[in-house]
Amino acid sequence: MKKIRLFTPGPCMVPEEALLEMARPFEHHRTAWFKDLMKDCTAKLQKVLCTQSEVLILTGSGTAAAEGAIVGCNPAGSKVLTIEGGKFGERWGQICEQFGIPVLRHKVEWGTAVTPEAVAALLKQDPAITTVIVVHSETSTATAADLEGIGRVTNAAGKLLIADCITSAGALPLKPDEWGVDVVITGSQKALMLPPGLGFVSVSPRAWKVIEANKGQHAFYVNLNKARKSAKDSDTPFTPAHLLVRGLKVTLDMLLAEGMENCWKRVAALAAATRAAGEAVGMAVYSQRPSDSVTALRVPEGVVEKDFRKQLRERFGIHLAGGQDQLEGKIVRMSHMGFVDSVDTLGAISAIEQTLHRLGHRFTLGAGVAAATRVFAERL
Amino acid sequence: MKKIRLFTPGPCMVPEEALLEMARPFEHHRTAWFKDLMKDCTAKLQKVLCTQSEVLILTGSGTAAAEGAIVGCNPAGSKVLTIEGGKFGERWGQICEQFGIPVLRHKVEWGTAVTPEAVAALLKQDPAITTVIVVHSETSTATAADLEGIGRVTNAAGKLLIADCITSAGALPLKPDEWGVDVVITGSQKALMLPPGLGFVSVSPRAWKVIEANKGQHAFYVNLNKARKSAKDSDTPFTPAHLLVRGLKVTLDMLLAEGMENCWKRVAALAAATRAAGEAVGMAVYSQRPSDSVTALRVPEGVVEKDFRKQLRERFGIHLAGGQDQLEGKIVRMSHMGFVDSVDTLGAISAIEQTLHRLGHRFTLGAGVAAATRVFAERL
Repeated sequence: MKKIRLFTPGPCMVPEEALLEMARPFEHHRTAWFKDLMKDCTAKLQKVLCTQSEVLILTGSGTAAAEGAIVGCNPAGSKVLTIEGGKFGERWGQICEQFGIPVLRHKVEWGTAVTPEAVAALLKQDPAITTVIVVHSETSTATAADLEGIGRVTNAAGKLLIADCITSAGALPLKPDEWGVDVVITGSQKALMLPPGLGFVSVSPRAWKVIEANKGQHAFYVNLNKARKSAKDSDTPFTPAHLLVRGLKVTLDMLLAEGMENCWKRVAALAAATRAAGEAVGMAVYSQRPSDSVTALRVPEGVVEKDFRKQLRERFGIHLAGGQDQLEGKIVRMSHMGFVDSVDTLGAISAIEQTLHRLGHRFTLGAGVAAATRVFAERL
Repeated sequence: MKKIRLFTPGPCMVPEEALLEMARPFEHHRTAWFKDLMKDCTAKLQKVLCTQSEVLILTGSGTAAAEGAIVGCNPAGSKVLTIEGGKFGERWGQICEQFGIPVLRHKVEWGTAVTPEAVAALLKQDPAITTVIVVHSETSTATAADLEGIGRVTNAAGKLLIADCITSAGALPLKPDEWGVDVVITGSQKALMLPPGLGFVSVSPRAWKVIEANKGQHAFYVNLNKARKSAKDSDTPFTPAHLLVRGLKVTLDMLLAEGMENCWKRVAALAAATRAAGEAVGMAVYSQRPSDSVTALRVPEGVVEKDFRKQLRERFGIHLAGGQDQLEGKIVRMSHMGFVDSVDTLGAISAIEQTLHRLGHRFTLGAGVAAATRVFAERL
């Protein structure tokens, strides 16, 4: 018997209901059926993202959505500040450079998050900056930024704020309108519980003013003006991955039935239990400001990370992510996003303990699941 | 009882085997499993596209793949010639303009195709042209160009040739290497029998030289250099719609089991039968150089196109496409791509006859299916 359990921070586990919905006989995308579906999903995405801003559905990964936002929000004369404390922060800086957009790429130590005060200081030092790009939950280091605090700073300074919420939307508390986040970017294969293939972007009225005026932007496929024009009629400018939109309706309905506050609470409990379990078995939490959507745990000395993850995969069907770049071999990352609950997580923690034990790591066998159980009993 | 039959020129009918394959429990995309799948699909795509050139799989529509090719192949100093005889030819001209690439947008009358001689004359008139973009099968007018002849001209002139094969690859005879086509662009939801969401591009060694040197190209998500670098390790630079790749393996296997020559023959027979049926029931073939992958038939006088297609949908579950822009209300378009055979097509022709009859059109009821049956008897 072999069950696959995706604890990777995207793709995450997808409910069978969504997979089967996408396997049903389907119609064309230029139909009333699909327009109704788009309209419904767009309205529900606004609820899931807790925003009144227009939300667009793009066919592509979160990176495609981010490119559309970055290129659209930065006409000639703009300057971007990126905060880079991991792989994804770096990617947004690379996009700016590839498109010739002036950018100040501010590095922070991996595993730490920028503070609102530091952002304020950077903006003060360089008044040419017009747009700030921040990663809400940096997947590569499992670290969350204080997006609310940063929003306060960028709003006070009158700058546009683009937030990579790819592994935060639907998982961490996120209130873009209250916090003054102009653009929220996310993707289908994280907390929205779908396979990869769709990117989403919400755009504030203030950001639309900039994007609308940016006629000559070097964007076509991910051009947000084009997407918006079609979206006004619940349509898309180019052929969409419409079966994924069909699956999206299923997962959005599930999230909204649970309620966003409850989703956030569930994810936070899974993360707290995982952190407690990690510490109890000698796998220290890596991040100094851990995200609740994904937990990075240090691989104990004497344990070879590759063997550890391989055994988890082969014996238990459990997929964790490893570390990237400088963190390769040093951490493992476990997702709390997608169709995953306390039962799944508890089982995975037990599997982690059994694997550590077999690999010769010394710790109190059972301490992890006990710690996690105590957290769940208290929080759920 | 209601069966959905997609005779639209994309999305087309998808075999249930592929839909169910995509609904199965799945693994992460950064795994040996997915790399093997990518490697297998890439090799099979080369066979389906009849090319030795590298083939890349992108997550997005055919337009995304086209943008990657157009931006990549045209560094500063380039000039593009587009041949525009319909919606899709126009789109490639628009992409050039959006990215500030100098372009000569040559219009041809809708329903006609440019001749190789005309391309030769245009290249002679404007020696600054470095790249020619031609639509092999223009979906909006159901018209095929002489890609082989055009390839002879562009090769003699030493120009790059990009071919939009979105509704030709897998459907019409296509031999890019023999014909000197540098870049072939296609998408998943046409003759490759999948839902929308993937774009494919093959790139000749000559085109790679240009793309490789084009470091500052304004492309990130669709950047072909990035895609190529990852593809060397059977990987993708950004999260792929990996379940679609899983479905792709199923449909590529089906196409290759049939054999490409046989696929082309099947599609050509469906088109010939449809054209014969159309003429027999008073629906003239619109195109002066019809594509075999999709047939455009004129709506007879006295028949309201919207009613005609609505009845086909509601009574028979048959979806045809209407005309676009100047052809709206004047033609209907029926696809011969995807998981469709002579039985499906014959049934659809009968439904078309019944609908025309009910709408008061005067013709010999049964003449269409009789004509189609004669064609099938002869050709299949």
